[in-house]
Amino acid sequence: MGRITARRRVTRIRRDATPSTRADVLAVEEPLEIRVNGGRLTVTMRTPGNDVDLAFGFLVSEGVITRGDQIDTARYCAGATDEGRNTYNVLDVTLAPDVPPPAPDLARSLTTTSACGVCGKDSIESVTTRSAFDPAADPLVVDADVLLDLPTRLREGQSVFDKTGGLHAAAIIDGHTGDIVVLREDVGRHNAVDKAIGWATAAHRLPLRGHILQVSGRASFELVQKAAMAGIPMLSAVSAPSSLAVDLADDRGITLVGFSRGESMVLYTRPDRIRTSAAASAVVS
Amino acid sequence: MGRITARRRVTRIRRDATPSTRADVLAVEEPLEIRVNGGRLTVTMRTPGNDVDLAFGFLVSEGVITRGDQIDTARYCAGATDEGRNTYNVLDVTLAPDVPPPAPDLARSLTTTSACGVCGKDSIESVTTRSAFDPAADPLVVDADVLLDLPTRLREGQSVFDKTGGLHAAAIIDGHTGDIVVLREDVGRHNAVDKAIGWATAAHRLPLRGHILQVSGRASFELVQKAAMAGIPMLSAVSAPSSLAVDLADDRGITLVGFSRGESMVLYTRPDRIRTSAAASAVVS
Repeated sequence: MGRITARRRVTRIRRDATPSTRADVLAVEEPLEIRVNGGRLTVTMRTPGNDVDLAFGFLVSEGVITRGDQIDTARYCAGATDEGRNTYNVLDVTLAPDVPPPAPDLARSLTTTSACGVCGKDSIESVTTRSAFDPAADPLVVDADVLLDLPTRLREGQSVFDKTGGLHAAAIIDGHTGDIVVLREDVGRHNAVDKAIGWATAAHRLPLRGHILQVSGRASFELVQKAAMAGIPMLSAVSAPSSLAVDLADDRGITLVGFSRGESMVLYTRPDRIRTSAAASAVVS
Repeated sequence: MGRITARRRVTRIRRDATPSTRADVLAVEEPLEIRVNGGRLTVTMRTPGNDVDLAFGFLVSEGVITRGDQIDTARYCAGATDEGRNTYNVLDVTLAPDVPPPAPDLARSLTTTSACGVCGKDSIESVTTRSAFDPAADPLVVDADVLLDLPTRLREGQSVFDKTGGLHAAAIIDGHTGDIVVLREDVGRHNAVDKAIGWATAAHRLPLRGHILQVSGRASFELVQKAAMAGIPMLSAVSAPSSLAVDLADDRGITLVGFSRGESMVLYTRPDRIRTSAAASAVVS
């Protein structure tokens, strides 16, 4: 697409130094409208590229599909502007004939609730979409060293980050070999995750049993939800999780790892899936 | 509210060391349903506290109100759960009698567009809400040293961050004195900004002429939009801006500062508002 980065002229200021102007590289952010069977489902601000993956992953996250063969076609909507130009910012996904379309109010209720009572465990029930998969039962066990290496490998795999400093990354990792299966970047953390899961969906690899979802930044409720919907048993983040992220991971039996920084990490839920060379018994105590 | 942080038992793993378990403090994330005149407008995942500010700021960002006196009352919805308990997660805002309620489709179209053609300048038109204020005409000029000090002061002002590592912060700064007018924290960057702007709305301080919005993290399109809607002429972020954030700031005449790290920063738009001791003339060249 050639639209992942953009150049702009900027002024750089250092303390007690003469300001200088230069060209700078920015991460591109543009709106993508996702349509299903011709009807608008959502608009997300994203970094262009891998838009079909993004749409597929979004549909998995929202519970519209659970398999790649539930999608018939995906195409950019032409004739978008007054001049009939294709902006590549509107994507229409057609579901297979036997797949029920999204509920009429899904566009309105995305990640929201109609209940007037959302708190703690209640709130998990009211804002989550139930998954067709059961990550709690996944027998995955990962060596601690493999997990500790993932943030470095994520960073190495990022193509745009070093140029802009502005992109989040998400990767799906084979939990047994530690290999990166797919890595995606975006200005939005949730989009990077949707792109990675969407790629796996199109490759008919759902549910992602035995895999790890490694993300830059923090672990929010929303990311745990996306992992659950794709059947991923382990989510590892470079920064902190929120309380609701931990509660949801606990509820779904997902191993949640935070502050994964190369030399150390913190396990918030299901530490029994991590094997350490030092003293495995202490982990599960 | 006492719900800004939560404690959970975690396992800490270091390379080649015995795992240890301890209690850890997390940033709380819970859903807040914002209702206007009894009808649901949106649900956002937020850190509890300053919910009324959050709702007011959200209404300003979405163009529903432009002044504090356009709000009649705000109250938590009681009788939310089956047991009739008030969860403090549903807030009903009643607008003053002369204020038009949000358009029926605002809940559906929040930050979205119905146009099938969103790209570059077009996309700015289609996804932005027009502001009642004109930050482009703001005569604010700020000393570079004042601006460079803001990230440190933001960090110092954060009460929860050091405990959890999991909260974003946003502060509204008096551009002439460099004083923090209000500082708010949240798991979501956009919520922290809405809380700060909402506080200023309730204090009848809109438009925020002559002020700076300082944020932790990145500068997205959405944050520039919020600054524009509140009449703030300068947005400064600790990390990178996106391309659309720069384009929108340029369009609205807002000074956008990125990578503000204490000793240096990058000016993306309207550098004429920054005064340096070294060579002011070089900035505007």
